[in-house]
Amino acid sequence: MAGQVGVTFILLVLGSCWGLQNNDVDEEPQLVFQPSKYGSLWPLPQKVQISEVSFKLSSSSFRIIDAKESRAGASCSLLQLAYRRYYEYMFGGVKKQKVNKSVRTDPTELPELQVWITSPDSECDGYPAVSSDESYELSVDQPFAVLKAPKVWGALHGLETFSQLVYEDEYGAKSINSSTISDFPRFAHRGVLLDTSRHFLPIKVLLANLETMAMNKFNVFHWHIVDDPSFPYLSQTFPELSRKGAYHPYTHVYTPADVKMVIEFARLRGIRVVSEFDTPGHTQSWGKGQPDLLTPCYAGSKPSGTFGPVNPILNSTYDFMGQFFKEISTVFPDAYVHLGGDEVDFTCWKSNPDIQRFMEQQGFGQDYSKLESFYIQKLLDIVTTTNKGYIIWQEVFDNGVKLKPDTVVHVWIGSGTNSEMSKVTAAGYTTILSAPWYLDYISVGQDWQKYYKVEPLNFNGTEEQKKLVIGGEACLWGEYVDATNLTPRLWPRASAVAERLWSAKEVTDIGDAYSRLSVHRCRLVVRGIPAEPLSPSFCPHEYKGI
Amino acid sequence: MAGQVGVTFILLVLGSCWGLQNNDVDEEPQLVFQPSKYGSLWPLPQKVQISEVSFKLSSSSFRIIDAKESRAGASCSLLQLAYRRYYEYMFGGVKKQKVNKSVRTDPTELPELQVWITSPDSECDGYPAVSSDESYELSVDQPFAVLKAPKVWGALHGLETFSQLVYEDEYGAKSINSSTISDFPRFAHRGVLLDTSRHFLPIKVLLANLETMAMNKFNVFHWHIVDDPSFPYLSQTFPELSRKGAYHPYTHVYTPADVKMVIEFARLRGIRVVSEFDTPGHTQSWGKGQPDLLTPCYAGSKPSGTFGPVNPILNSTYDFMGQFFKEISTVFPDAYVHLGGDEVDFTCWKSNPDIQRFMEQQGFGQDYSKLESFYIQKLLDIVTTTNKGYIIWQEVFDNGVKLKPDTVVHVWIGSGTNSEMSKVTAAGYTTILSAPWYLDYISVGQDWQKYYKVEPLNFNGTEEQKKLVIGGEACLWGEYVDATNLTPRLWPRASAVAERLWSAKEVTDIGDAYSRLSVHRCRLVVRGIPAEPLSPSFCPHEYKGI
Repeated sequence: MAGQVGVTFILLVLGSCWGLQNNDVDEEPQLVFQPSKYGSLWPLPQKVQISEVSFKLSSSSFRIIDAKESRAGASCSLLQLAYRRYYEYMFGGVKKQKVNKSVRTDPTELPELQVWITSPDSECDGYPAVSSDESYELSVDQPFAVLKAPKVWGALHGLETFSQLVYEDEYGAKSINSSTISDFPRFAHRGVLLDTSRHFLPIKVLLANLETMAMNKFNVFHWHIVDDPSFPYLSQTFPELSRKGAYHPYTHVYTPADVKMVIEFARLRGIRVVSEFDTPGHTQSWGKGQPDLLTPCYAGSKPSGTFGPVNPILNSTYDFMGQFFKEISTVFPDAYVHLGGDEVDFTCWKSNPDIQRFMEQQGFGQDYSKLESFYIQKLLDIVTTTNKGYIIWQEVFDNGVKLKPDTVVHVWIGSGTNSEMSKVTAAGYTTILSAPWYLDYISVGQDWQKYYKVEPLNFNGTEEQKKLVIGGEACLWGEYVDATNLTPRLWPRASAVAERLWSAKEVTDIGDAYSRLSVHRCRLVVRGIPAEPLSPSFCPHEYKGI
Repeated sequence: MAGQVGVTFILLVLGSCWGLQNNDVDEEPQLVFQPSKYGSLWPLPQKVQISEVSFKLSSSSFRIIDAKESRAGASCSLLQLAYRRYYEYMFGGVKKQKVNKSVRTDPTELPELQVWITSPDSECDGYPAVSSDESYELSVDQPFAVLKAPKVWGALHGLETFSQLVYEDEYGAKSINSSTISDFPRFAHRGVLLDTSRHFLPIKVLLANLETMAMNKFNVFHWHIVDDPSFPYLSQTFPELSRKGAYHPYTHVYTPADVKMVIEFARLRGIRVVSEFDTPGHTQSWGKGQPDLLTPCYAGSKPSGTFGPVNPILNSTYDFMGQFFKEISTVFPDAYVHLGGDEVDFTCWKSNPDIQRFMEQQGFGQDYSKLESFYIQKLLDIVTTTNKGYIIWQEVFDNGVKLKPDTVVHVWIGSGTNSEMSKVTAAGYTTILSAPWYLDYISVGQDWQKYYKVEPLNFNGTEEQKKLVIGGEACLWGEYVDATNLTPRLWPRASAVAERLWSAKEVTDIGDAYSRLSVHRCRLVVRGIPAEPLSPSFCPHEYKGI
């Protein structure tokens, strides 16, 4: 899968678009900002050629248009919206006075970018999928720039890349160098997990972060939507779940319209929305609106009044799950649903005499992981009937549950990660990696370097096994983040993961990454995203909020 | 200094003004939210009595007015501005329809708060100082509430406390319980250090954090204004310093008008602005605009082109410092200036043959700390002629420099902190503590608890020595913070320090603190401050920004 990074000659005048003296007194290696020959491209494309020849872009006359030959045109609103969005990114700060040009165009001006979808099915109105073609080719030259992509997904990435090539020269003139780029992702699944249960995240925050994901070529929003603390998902089949399980039934829920909006906003940026409804553990909030769903815990011979994981011994549990996941399968168009299955605490099950009796009947002995597997097996069968694939946390695999061949095993446990990757892929399952990318763990300094240095295929296994690693996810669990601090905590730390998952395996120069990422983070700031600084530095345009 | 916390009976209906289920899966002790009998008071006043009797506050008719007997009235704009500010905090979210009351006031309504300055000199037009009287007494009862304070500084704190007593009942009606509060700070110096050199902080960010400091009864803004990476202070005597040493000479500087605004904004909130101009180390940015100020480093027998600390052997250095600190003494009205003196690296001095010769002449041998002391001694003498007191980092004391009796020694080194506190106070110097409160060090979880549990007087020493500890400061060094992430990183973590420095020594109940602080942080959010969450939880009104 790994491509070669080809480079000829490059000179990129970065002008004032960055800035820093690194005077860290801390532990990290001293990285010194030196303009990268790749400018501020992030993540780095597979093949990049940037020449010395530069063109100017006029805010009044520059256009992004459909190429005549394109298989997607004016009727593809996904593209038309993207053209507007990227025009705004490139010229947003500029006064757009219409200039009457009586003279012909300046010979050094680049008048337009033509977008050419080459495949008969552009997928303009479809949803992105793990198998989507995200490749594109970008040629910046006169008489006009051309962005070729088989599908709209590649075109979206190419537009982002084009916008990243634009810089201001020392007089503030929007400029771009003659370039040739050929690009595709190293891994197909490049995700960010956000957790809307431990803290409710307003829709505005979700959308801002989807926007930022697109700027980093992430393509999966893993929506860990419910968990123990709250159940903000408003189910039309079981409205009591959020009515009783959300922090507040009106102000702290995601309505069907909200969910639709998130999914469409994501789709327009080439991002899949993979919802997670984690069971049988992590379900305290479910129990409030769905009686008998959770296991009653016992203190001695009497119920203690508290509840444990989903009760796996009642038929009503499976009736509920059948109806619930039927709804989920229609609300979320993605081909996969994440079913969780992590961290099941057996204490409560052990205390319950009905569970004990069931264990005996089934011949499980004292092995409660067999009970867990019993539950998960039935759940997987239920979800299979909805025609969805599933992703599960690694414990489900570890416990020996029978999985469909297309199951994705999500590796998250920080110790023994490499041997887990070996085992999962040896068993023939596709896998995604998150263990090294738990961004809720924070420390002073440039921890992005640690995320950047991860090599996902650095485990013992055959080439066939390595091919089963379809990507990874940066996880920002929600214990300590909400609308007040999520965005600067996520960015640009997640950007490090984005490049690791997109760029070629050989892209490991930390100094070059530092230089590109410094400018990339200032670009995020200019686009309104409060991405935090990497080091002592400044951006020409600092963040305006507080 | 420690007062007693007196409490009679209390019932505080917190209504919906909080919220949380604590489901931390992490390391901290499980703290469970239970409404505190002290409501959401933060920091906790010295004596609090809150009764069951409650009154309503009408947004259309409630007034904060000067008591007839007050020694400060309509001409004291500091108070009049504070009345408006606190009215906004209490009723900001409410539609203020003017109601024509034909019937007489509801017997359960509290119509006004009278503010009574009791001292002949209210200090309305003065600046707060380390010796300022910040005490106040608050009585909330019919026919009206009374806030008595000798000086305006106490009145400001009392207004904050009054606003913290106001809550919404379950129907949303603004309510307050009959209460008696008598309050004063345990420590006179309660500071927050912000660093505007490693990242430039826009004025908006400084003001928002001064605002938040006032909500936490902090009274010192330690402005670490310049350092190695940049020199944003625009000096009128030496304009080249910022012209060449700032990140940008126009967009990344503090003009004289900016500095004036910060000082006045702080004064109106009872906050001193203590500027720090750290020398002889941490001065790389100074060298850009002031030739010959820094020591040329040598590589072998030739200058290497790099520079070290301030050059202590030239008369021109002291001429410069004399003029510079003369300006500083007039720009910053506070009686103290922070002179730094930390972390001087001797490598460059050692390499320089002129310095070596000087060491020999002075008979310093190879002890470069003697050279450091030589410099500092001369600097202190210079600053003394400007009639300012000074604060210095602990190294200056450690090196045996002769200090004026009113010098404040700032203890910051994390190891041996207690023995340093013993030594400094045994030598008779006043001291402030920051070592346990370096908020730039971050980790996942509730590190506020660690800050909260610090007892500043927990060192070996006499009662006389303990009295020399005048307070402390929370430090948020700027390597990794700027406008994008500073505010949520500082709050409510610094609030833990605020209570430690204000409240009685006996106020150590971490569970009670957790409950009050949880509500306090939601109050900060309602007031527009993106204070980050303590744990899985929600606020009735979540932060609106991203």
